[in-house]
This record gives sequence, structure tokens and C-alpha cells, in this order.
Amino acid sequence: MSRPKFVNFTRNSSQGYGLLTEEGIVNLSARHGARWPTLREVIEDGALSTLAAESASLPPDFPVEDIRFEIPIPSPEKIVCVGVNFPDRNEEYKDGQAAPANPSLFIRFPRSFTGHDEPLIRPPESPQLDYEGEIVIVIGKGGRRIPESEALNHIAALSLSNEGTIRDWVRHAKFNVTQGKNFDRTGSIGPWLVPFTDESQLADIKLKTRVNGEVRQSDRTSRMIFPFRKIINYISTFTTLVPGDVIVTGTPTGAGARFDPPIWLKPGDVVEVEADGIGILRNTIADEM
Amino acid sequence: MSRPKFVNFTRNSSQGYGLLTEEGIVNLSARHGARWPTLREVIEDGALSTLAAESASLPPDFPVEDIRFEIPIPSPEKIVCVGVNFPDRNEEYKDGQAAPANPSLFIRFPRSFTGHDEPLIRPPESPQLDYEGEIVIVIGKGGRRIPESEALNHIAALSLSNEGTIRDWVRHAKFNVTQGKNFDRTGSIGPWLVPFTDESQLADIKLKTRVNGEVRQSDRTSRMIFPFRKIINYISTFTTLVPGDVIVTGTPTGAGARFDPPIWLKPGDVVEVEADGIGILRNTIADEM
Repeated sequence: MSRPKFVNFTRNSSQGYGLLTEEGIVNLSARHGARWPTLREVIEDGALSTLAAESASLPPDFPVEDIRFEIPIPSPEKIVCVGVNFPDRNEEYKDGQAAPANPSLFIRFPRSFTGHDEPLIRPPESPQLDYEGEIVIVIGKGGRRIPESEALNHIAALSLSNEGTIRDWVRHAKFNVTQGKNFDRTGSIGPWLVPFTDESQLADIKLKTRVNGEVRQSDRTSRMIFPFRKIINYISTFTTLVPGDVIVTGTPTGAGARFDPPIWLKPGDVVEVEADGIGILRNTIADEM
Repeated sequence: MSRPKFVNFTRNSSQGYGLLTEEGIVNLSARHGARWPTLREVIEDGALSTLAAESASLPPDFPVEDIRFEIPIPSPEKIVCVGVNFPDRNEEYKDGQAAPANPSLFIRFPRSFTGHDEPLIRPPESPQLDYEGEIVIVIGKGGRRIPESEALNHIAALSLSNEGTIRDWVRHAKFNVTQGKNFDRTGSIGPWLVPFTDESQLADIKLKTRVNGEVRQSDRTSRMIFPFRKIINYISTFTTLVPGDVIVTGTPTGAGARFDPPIWLKPGDVVEVEADGIGILRNTIADEM
């Protein structure tokens, strides 16, 4: 059984959201936009699964070729990213430290991401554009100090990210990776949202990144240092999570920076991030115009 | 001449904004809310100074005692904070490194701040709540790669921040200060926005922090490692600044963590951040209920 796929898009210069079926796009914002302006409000109402069920058999309104994919939640209150979350990546730091006790976290602005099938933008400031394939969880039910035992009940949907990074700008200053992680349109989120209803959708799924067809990253979520439950518990310890919040959960080893010499992304490259049951997020690389 | 003071407030459970005069609050959202829902839209229209001039002689609608101060821009697209921006603070790290080449940056969520005269909240997770007095600039005209020569023309207004920090959570993980900087309501922004019209408002002003009346931090903006022009230029290199964006520009030496032993804030303490020509931002400390 194929799971529902909610897409956020631009078509003829206007924004909308819909359900992607085998026949095309069912335009949901045309039907429900007054009640739910974006997928964030659908999620806030806990309506994702109901909406999928009642819309799945509708005829498509237009073909998928008519849309440009946008990031699924256009203006989340927060996008929190987890660093160093797979064992081999921690070892690669070669600093003699054991696995860290708590997840490293940083924030990205929505404008640092673009949608599926859109180019990632290499800025003139650096040639060191790098990929990081990651699984994205979108918060449905908000909360503070969410216990691990309850954490999965707070997830509304899954997606993917290429958490694209300008590698030399990550260490441009004394502390913090902010600037290397926030160049406009250097990363992507998508291709769509898949409603989360069952732990098996996350527990032990394969996550892969390919560059021009070659596998560069490949691991399974069961090996994450900080499992999804822990991430939600930890982040909600300090900040109140709200519906639509996006958590980008960390990348396996094998980014371009780890090669000797490093292999950076260049214009024309195609990067695909794939995970079981979610889909394939594909982006090309382009120089900033 | 006293400069205009724009306040964002809650009164009788509803949000509004206005001009604080010697007689009280002129309710501007009642007059202009349809056109400009918040001060962010006033700023986007470049209307701050005009609005101040045309409203200054209006009779007040209610006394200042009727309002609770909120952070001046309720939902900025970004709040970017600068770390280690005064010379003595860099030396305090005692790591043998010269002054850094580029500013360290981190992001705070709006919900990590509260308004003037509201309590900063000490969470049960840590006793290490610390103050950091800082000057805040609010972007008026957006842009990318803004040259230093033009940077000050992109500032709409000034304010202050107590960039309150949970000190042990700043180093809770391997990298990044995110979690120590984002506990709900541990910092403050305010008390109001002062329109920025002249470089002398920023060039060499005194910035002080007092705890229970005792001066703990005191320095002048002319000594900043990264001046305001450089900060705007640097941040806009990677991200497009938009109207209403908030930049918290760094704190002088003398936070509680620098004492031996450290002196943390405790319930009942009163912290005041003061800068010439902007005002005094005052907060008490309270334990989370």
C-alpha cells in the first residue's frame, strides 16, 4: 500500500497544497484553503489522515508537471537540526571523545531550504557546497517536556532533507555553525509529507544519499545515537514545540567533506536523498545567478 | 529632545501597539491595525518616523500601568544573536586565540524572550540563569550582501535585550549553544523601539547591566569587535535580511559566569539593561511555576 503524499506547491505563481496521487495532483487548498491556509493548519487540526482518506479517490485537478515543489511547511515556527547523530560520524571527528551525552542542535531559517526538484544554490562566496541526507519529522501535537514514552504521538508527518551546507562557513567563526547552515536555498526539504501513524515507519528504515547515482551515505535509523523519542524529549525540555515545527534529525557518515580530498557539489550534479516509505528527494546544483 | 518610543503590548488580553508618551499610551493599533497588524508591518512600510510625528501630540488612550509589555516585534522572521563581541570577553576565553575574524552567530526563537517588566523564568533543569545586556537593531529595509557603507540605512529601530542564558546548557552538547540560549522566556527584548535616524544613536553609546542596582557590565559600542555595519554586512552575506528581522549585537564582559565562583540569577533579582538614548529594560527573575 502506498502512503498518502501531501505536497506544497507553486502553480501559475500561486501557492497551494494538495495530494499527489498516481494520476496527478488533487488540489486541496482550492477545497479547504479558507479553513486551512497551509499544511501547517491542517496539521494543527490533526486532520492530515482524515483529509488523505477523504481525498484519495478524487480525480486529479492537474498533472504533477504543472507544479513546482515548495518546502512542505512554508513558515514553521522552528526548524531545529540535529548534528552528529550516527556513530561513524562521531568517530570521524577523531577527538578522542566518546559519543556525546546530548544532541548538538542548530537552527536553520526556512529560506535556507528549497523544495524537491528545485536547484540547490552554490553561492559565489565558497565552492564548498556539501550534501547531508536526513529524515525530517514534523510535529503534530505541541508540548513541553514531552516524555520519551509519549514522543512518537507528537509526530504528524515525515519528510526528507538534503541539509546542504557551506562547509568552510560552518567554522567561519569561533563558535556555532549558523552561517554555514543558512545560506539561502542551499538545502532542501521534501518531496512531500507522509502522515505518520505507526512506529514502524521510523524504527529501522534505510536512509541513503546518492550523488549522480553513486551511493555516498547509507545507514539505518536504528543506529542513530539519539533516537527520535530522545530528540523530541530533549528539544522540548527547553522550548515548547508547536504544530508544524520541523526537526531535521541528523545525517549518516559520507558527506563530501569526509573524502580525501573532499568532493564538493558542483553545478549540474544531481543529489538524491531516499528513505524507505517516505520517497526520494531530488535536487540539482546550480550556481547563484 | 526625547525620542519616540513604540511599544508592543497586551491589554485586557488583547494585543496592540502604541506610542508611549509622558502622559500614557497612544493606541496606534486601534487606529492603524487594519493597515499594519503589528509594528513589523509599520517598519516594512518605512512608516515608523512619520507615524511617530503624526501621533506624538495625540492624547493618551490609557495609562502605561494598563499594559503588559511584549517583545516589540511579535514574530520576526529571524532573531540572530552575535557572540563574543567585546574585546575583554574574547580574552576571557584564555584560549590563546586572537580576536576572531568573523562573528559567532546563533539563533533564538521569539518564545525564548519576554517583554519589559515581565519575569525572566528560571527553569527547574538548571540554577545557572545568567544575564547578558545587549543592544538590538531591527532591520527596516531588507537586502542581501549589504555593503558596510550602506548598512546603517537598513536599520529601522533600536531596542535592548537581556540575552538571558542557561549557562551549563550552552555546552550541553558537542557543538553549538542553541539549547542554552532557547529556554522559553529566559531572555527579554524591549522596553520599546526607538526609530533609528542618525548614526550618533549607535556610534559610541554606553551599555550597562545592573543586578539589584550593582553595575555588572559596562562598555561602549565604539569598542565592539564587530561594529554594526560589519554585522549587517556579514549576516546578509548568507541570508536575505527582511523588514522586522532582529539582530542582538553582543554583550560586554561581566556576565555572572565570569565571577569566581559564578553568580547566577535567583528569584527576586532585578536586572536592568540600559543604553544611552534607548532606555532601560528591566526584568525580575522568577522560578517556573
